[in-house]
Formats: sequence, structure tokens, C-alpha cells
Amino acid sequence: MPYFDAASSLPPHPVARQALLAAFDDGWADPSRLHREGRRARMLLDAARETAAEAVGCRPDELTFTSSGTRALHTGMAGALAGRARAGRHLLVSAVEHSAVLHAAEAHRAAGGTVAEIGVDRGGLVAPADVAAALAAGPAAALVCVQSANHEVGTRQPVADIAEIGRAAGVPLLVDAAQSLPWGPVAGAWSLLAASAHKWGGPGGVGLLAVRKGVRFAPASPVDERESGRAPGFENIPAVVAAAASLRAFRAEAGAEAARLAALVDRIRERVPRLVPDVEVVGEAAHRLPHVVTFSCLHVDGEALLHALDRAGFAVSSGSSCTSSTLTPSHVLRAMGVLSEGNVRVSLPPGTTEEDVERFLAVLPEAVAGVRAQLTPPTVTGGAGRAGGAAEPAGTGTFTVDSLGKRCPVPVIELAGAIGRVAVGGVVTVLADDAAARLDIPAWCTMRGQEYLGESPHGDGPGTAYRVRRLV
Amino acid sequence: MPYFDAASSLPPHPVARQALLAAFDDGWADPSRLHREGRRARMLLDAARETAAEAVGCRPDELTFTSSGTRALHTGMAGALAGRARAGRHLLVSAVEHSAVLHAAEAHRAAGGTVAEIGVDRGGLVAPADVAAALAAGPAAALVCVQSANHEVGTRQPVADIAEIGRAAGVPLLVDAAQSLPWGPVAGAWSLLAASAHKWGGPGGVGLLAVRKGVRFAPASPVDERESGRAPGFENIPAVVAAAASLRAFRAEAGAEAARLAALVDRIRERVPRLVPDVEVVGEAAHRLPHVVTFSCLHVDGEALLHALDRAGFAVSSGSSCTSSTLTPSHVLRAMGVLSEGNVRVSLPPGTTEEDVERFLAVLPEAVAGVRAQLTPPTVTGGAGRAGGAAEPAGTGTFTVDSLGKRCPVPVIELAGAIGRVAVGGVVTVLADDAAARLDIPAWCTMRGQEYLGESPHGDGPGTAYRVRRLV
Repeated sequence: MPYFDAASSLPPHPVARQALLAAFDDGWADPSRLHREGRRARMLLDAARETAAEAVGCRPDELTFTSSGTRALHTGMAGALAGRARAGRHLLVSAVEHSAVLHAAEAHRAAGGTVAEIGVDRGGLVAPADVAAALAAGPAAALVCVQSANHEVGTRQPVADIAEIGRAAGVPLLVDAAQSLPWGPVAGAWSLLAASAHKWGGPGGVGLLAVRKGVRFAPASPVDERESGRAPGFENIPAVVAAAASLRAFRAEAGAEAARLAALVDRIRERVPRLVPDVEVVGEAAHRLPHVVTFSCLHVDGEALLHALDRAGFAVSSGSSCTSSTLTPSHVLRAMGVLSEGNVRVSLPPGTTEEDVERFLAVLPEAVAGVRAQLTPPTVTGGAGRAGGAAEPAGTGTFTVDSLGKRCPVPVIELAGAIGRVAVGGVVTVLADDAAARLDIPAWCTMRGQEYLGESPHGDGPGTAYRVRRLV
Repeated sequence: MPYFDAASSLPPHPVARQALLAAFDDGWADPSRLHREGRRARMLLDAARETAAEAVGCRPDELTFTSSGTRALHTGMAGALAGRARAGRHLLVSAVEHSAVLHAAEAHRAAGGTVAEIGVDRGGLVAPADVAAALAAGPAAALVCVQSANHEVGTRQPVADIAEIGRAAGVPLLVDAAQSLPWGPVAGAWSLLAASAHKWGGPGGVGLLAVRKGVRFAPASPVDERESGRAPGFENIPAVVAAAASLRAFRAEAGAEAARLAALVDRIRERVPRLVPDVEVVGEAAHRLPHVVTFSCLHVDGEALLHALDRAGFAVSSGSSCTSSTLTPSHVLRAMGVLSEGNVRVSLPPGTTEEDVERFLAVLPEAVAGVRAQLTPPTVTGGAGRAGGAAEPAGTGTFTVDSLGKRCPVPVIELAGAIGRVAVGGVVTVLADDAAARLDIPAWCTMRGQEYLGESPHGDGPGTAYRVRRLV
């Protein structure tokens, strides 16, 4: 049963299993103890640090093992921000960072700091010029955070160029390398780097935090003597050994696998829009991870599609609102301004075969069609009569759709059903309170060649009024 | 080769190894995903939580898996203190808590809170009446932290009584149960509890934090959706499964092993003072962990003794100053007011045989004698002449020993050599700048029946002047 959710977590690499077992017997003692068991544990820890540092491209004494990639990000950001508090309390983050970065940014704001988000283009790309502009606009920045590659759409960011801009401005760059580190070191003069072992088939419970020598860094309180004060608690040496060994093993195969998987992803990127009507492939076509492809399907509930694919034997992920416990659409897709409904992320693990991909392409159209068929057909409950804005030409008609209380993708489905109720030039207003509508109604307009006029509060009522002019 | 450092970390339990391997293949996916791999991981996590909760004696939804016992303590204290910030910002901790608790207390103080330490008796015991008095003395307390048993000397604390006092005062009790949880649940109405899996032969990287329903708790920032917001980062499910399974397995054998090990510890407690001259066994004889015994040896360097025992095949631990990177003596021994020099902690793992213990008792006297022989014989560099305090009787003599720049146990050895230079009633002053002297000179006086007169700054010079009146 093909597992196509590699960007979420990889099955363990055989080397991880072997290394874990070996180190489980030899690496259980406290490495800070002076007895032989402690010294043996310390030697395993030191060797793992050397192996991992080589793969990261840093010195062993620049590398800390944390308990997760999230912890590495939280610790790295807090330490760099605290270390540079005198230089400034302004933090720059790209709008498509992992939620761990955005949550740490939120904590920084709550503690009195300021945060600015750097936007992306429709492919999810951060423009180095935008980083330079944000740095120039001030206030004095303490830190810039940009991921090496996006976790939802696979877009690779120009972190070497951004690091250079940061270096010129004297501002360190923290790179979340969770998605790209398995495939190769991150180029450029970054200052801090974070990663997570279960993304390369290492065990859970291990993150990496690299802090280059010379970068100001103030470890967080409470203090702890382990891992240079950067990761409190007893070191998890068997897992750390397995993480380092499996990173090296993954890298040994990465070049050939990257080429092979990139070709399979190209095939999916090309074929899906031909196989499934009303699909948008999102994310950069050129600057991307080898193994990730993401697309959104109009008029589809993402969670329902995910379940349909799971039943058909394919494990994928979704950035659609409906799969998230927060019921808000993916901040990544929102920042890109692309459709979020019916969103599917396919991320191929090493070893994925051509046959697996062909079978996926074979079952996808039916899965999408099945989900679309289950959705309630458009029930247009509004009527002509509410006056449109003054700017709209008279005589072409207005129509209001009441989608209040309905979850995505129903508002867009109802809009699609209602657009025919006005003549070309006429305006349809959709009343909706699902947060995804803010993203999906404009995206629908782009896909369908209609004009999105904007949103306004819904008078005294709940929700928001979205206005669309019929052009075709 | 006997490993007698169980209180530091236990070799993995066979059940931990089996469970880890099984869950390594099935528990690697993200448990928050909807596909079958994610659901399988979620089921393993849920089952582990039920098993661990049963062993702790709490509801599964009260239990969080953290990345270490240290993290559990940091998170538990921060969450309880933040949750009760309106009730007060005063924290009570026993003076013999694990450094993780004291570090978190330090962080609380640095953030504007107040902290009071509750002292212990010479056996290391916290008196419930002292907790009640500290609560009554105010300011309004937000939290009390008392360990279930001490990690250095094995003394069990009356946490049920203390919890009752806390309950009556409306103040929650956090129990660091790292050392005792393997042996049984912690009785009483505690509010929060922390523990660490590698103390019972579980894997590294797993701590437990229990927070009883109804206890006010504010998760720390940055937020994260995993583990009820109390442990950010990807769940380490294989390790969590192994931790829960090995806790249950350890408990199944705990009753019989506790009785057996307690008898072996009794043997060590009884025999060591007869086998080795000038030894003080420290810690409660009655209220104690079954497997821990600690003693201090006069005129012995703890690190040297540890190495000597290691060469003789025994891995033990030491709370002596010289084994610590901070070069300060154990805060536990200091709080108890007992000798810190030549300190050895023996903590027996399950399965320790009578023969192992007899062999240890056979090699110990020679190891201590060897270390004592290596130490420089007392070189008394001072001379009579410095005037003693006015309170000292005239004609009995004074003598000053200059031990500045010399590390423990040299100042005490020099004191022992100098005491004969004054008549009974005379006073020896020791000038020393090693922090352990503050603990070990009074302890030496108690052991030798001499009178400790107190300390004062050493005029304009460095270090401290400790004064001792010869009585015998």
C-alpha cells in the first residue's frame, strides 16, 4: 500500500533500525558520568555529532541534538532573539514558514517583540529583494527566518541569496531545513539551521540545531548543562546515533533518488490536470523538492478526498481547512493566494516505483469524482433584489447567495451554481463565514476567468460578503 | 562488571527493547494524520498513555509524554506557576530537589517571582510542619515542589502529608517522582507529577508529566497542538511505547526486587563504616528508596575514588564537588549539613546479586586507602602568631593554615594535620577558597568532636577564614 506522505514522516531507514539497536545496548548510560558506561555513551554521542555535523556542513561543536525539529526551531529562534536583544527586537519571517516558526514568532510578539511577515509569490517563492526591503524598512531586525524548502508545496527558497543579504545587513538567518536537509546540505552563509530526523527515516525524538560560531546566542532559561545548555534533559543517545547514521545513509542514495523521484513528480504535475477537471497544481515547478507535488481540486472537500484515497490504498496529506483541527485553511496556500479546497499533497518516499505512481494516477480521477458527487448540489437560497454597489452597471443583475454556516467547499460550489443567475457584467454576492472562502472565492475567480471585486462585512449580520462580477 | 549507578540511568529492560522494535515498524507516522499509518501510530500512542497512566495512578487524559524528566519538571512548574499567577507568584521548593527543579525555580525568580527553599534535617527529610509554616509565612504561594525520594541519598519524602497540607491551603503540590515511580505509584493528593523513563529501564527521550484535572495549568508559549499543548514537537511513539511497556514490566518485579535490594543496601549501610575508617553514611535509614545508599569518606577526593572503583570494576556516582563541572559541592549534601568529600552513591539495579555487593565491600577499603595515600600529606604553611578572636581563652594558642588555592579535600586534610599544633581550647583558622570547605570543615568538626566556631571573610584577601576550636 503506497505511502505518499514522506514530507510528514518517513518509515524508518534500515540503517536507523540497526544503529538504534546497537546503541540501545551501549548508549543508555548518562554521558556526563565518569564510569566506563558513561564514557561509552559519551563516545557514541560524540561520534554521532561528528557524523551529523558533516552532513549539515558545520563543526561538531556548532551542533546540538534537540528532542524534535519543533524544539530546534523554538530554541534556535528564542536563543538568537535573546542573544541579539540589544541589536533589536524585530523578527522577519516568511509567510510560508512551518507553524513551529510562526508560533515562536507569536511568542516573540507576545513578549513585546515585533514581527513582520515577508510575502511570497503565487509559486510560494520568497524574493530576496523583499527580504532586503523588509530589512531596510526597519525597525532594526534581530533575526530573519526562511525555510530552505516549503513543507506543503515543495518550493525551494533562495536561502543562500537571503543569507548574503542578511550578512550584509549584519542580521543572522535561521533556516528551517527540515524538508531539504535529507537531500543535501543547505548552501550559503546561514547562521542557524534546524532539522528533524524523522524526515529522513531517522527515529522520532531527534532534532538538529546548528548555531554557527560567532552568532550571538543566549540559551533559554531554565538552564541545563547538557548539549551546551541548548537542549535540557537526558540525552537520547540511541536515537541520536540512529538519526546520524540514517542521515548519512539517506544521503548516500539521495542523488540518484532525487533524480528518479523528480521525474515521477513531473509526471504527476503534468498528468493530474489532464486527468482531473478543475485542478490547480500549486508550488514552484522549477525550484522545488524532488519528491513533493501539491494540487487543489475545485468543489472538493479535502478531508473526504483524503479518506477516499486512503480507501484506495494511498496515504497522502492535505492542507485543506477541513483536515485541520483549527478549521482554517493552510496559511501556506493562503499566502500564495491559491485555491485551498480539495488540497492534496503527494510526497514520495525513496523507493517509490513508477507503478505506484501510475496506480495513483489511475485511482485519482474516480476518487475526486466520487467526492464531488457526494457534495450537496448547489442550493441557491438567495434571490435577486439586494442592491449591488453603485459601481456596477445597471441592468445586468445582482444575486446573493447565503452560504452562512456552510463549510468549504460549499460556498464556492454555490457561487458556481449562482453565477449563471446573472448576465455577463452582473454581480453575485456570497455571504459566508467559513474562513476558507476568503481564499477560495478569489482562487475560483482566477480559475474560472471571473472578476473578484472584493469583500466587505455583511452589514450587521455574521460572516463576510464576497462579490464576484461575471465576465464569461 | 557491576553497574551500581541505577539512580542515574538503568540499562534497558528487555521489554523496552522488544516494545521499541515492534513500535519502530508501526509507530513512525504522524499520529495527527488521517491515513491508516497515522491512525496506527495514534492507536499505539493512546495504548501507551493508558498503560503509563495506570502505573502513575491518573487518568490517561491527565498524562503527557515529554522528551525527558527534566522537560516534564520544567513544563509542569512553568504551567502550574503561570496557571496560578493570579493566586500568587511565590514558589516553595525543598532544598534537596533535583537541579532541574532548582533551575526552573531560578527562572521563576528571574521572571519576577519569589522562591523560598524548605530545609531538611540531617537525614535529608522535609518536615511537613516546615511546609505548613512556609505556607503560613506567606506570601501567597502558587506551587509547592517536593520530590518523592531524593536522587542522591535515597531519602523518601512524606509527600502524602505534604499534599494534604497543600490541599488544605489551596496550593497544588508538584512531585518529582523520577526516583520512586519505578517502585510504585506516589500516594496522596498530589496535583502534578513528573518522571523519567530511563530510570526504570525505558528508553531515553521520554518523560511523564501528569496534571490532575482541576489543576490550573497554562501551557507555555510557543504553542503547539501536540500532547495537549504541553510537549511541542513530533511525538516519539516507539520510545513512548517502550517506556510504558517497561514501566509495567518493572512494576511486575518491583515488590520482590525492592525487598531483596533493601536487604543488600542494609548490608552496605552496616558494613561500610566498619570496613572503612572515617566514613559517614548519609541519608535516612528508615524512609528510603530500596536501592540507594550514599556515604562520604573523610580525606578522600570523590573523583579519584570514583576512578579507583571504576578500575576495580564498579560504576558508582559521586555528589562530591570534584565530579561536578561547576566545582561546587552537591546542594543536597550541603542542605543536609553532612560531609561532601569522598562522597559515593551506590544505587543497585534490579538483579544485583549478593556476590556483587560482597565484592564491592571487598574492594572498597583498598580503593579508599589508595586514594587517601595519594593525597599530599598535610603541609602546614601557616604559623602561630595571628591573633585569635577576643573570645578565645588566652594561652591555649592559635594557628593559621593557608589552604588558599587548594581543592577539596586538601583544606580538611590540612586542618586535621594542624589541630595538633594547638592545645585543647586553642583555635585553628583555615583560609580556604574551595566552596566545599564551607560544608566539609563543619562536618569534619562533627565527626571528630571538635568545635566549629564559624567563618568570616579573610580580611582583604581572597577566600574565607574558618575557625575551629580544639576540644579533644
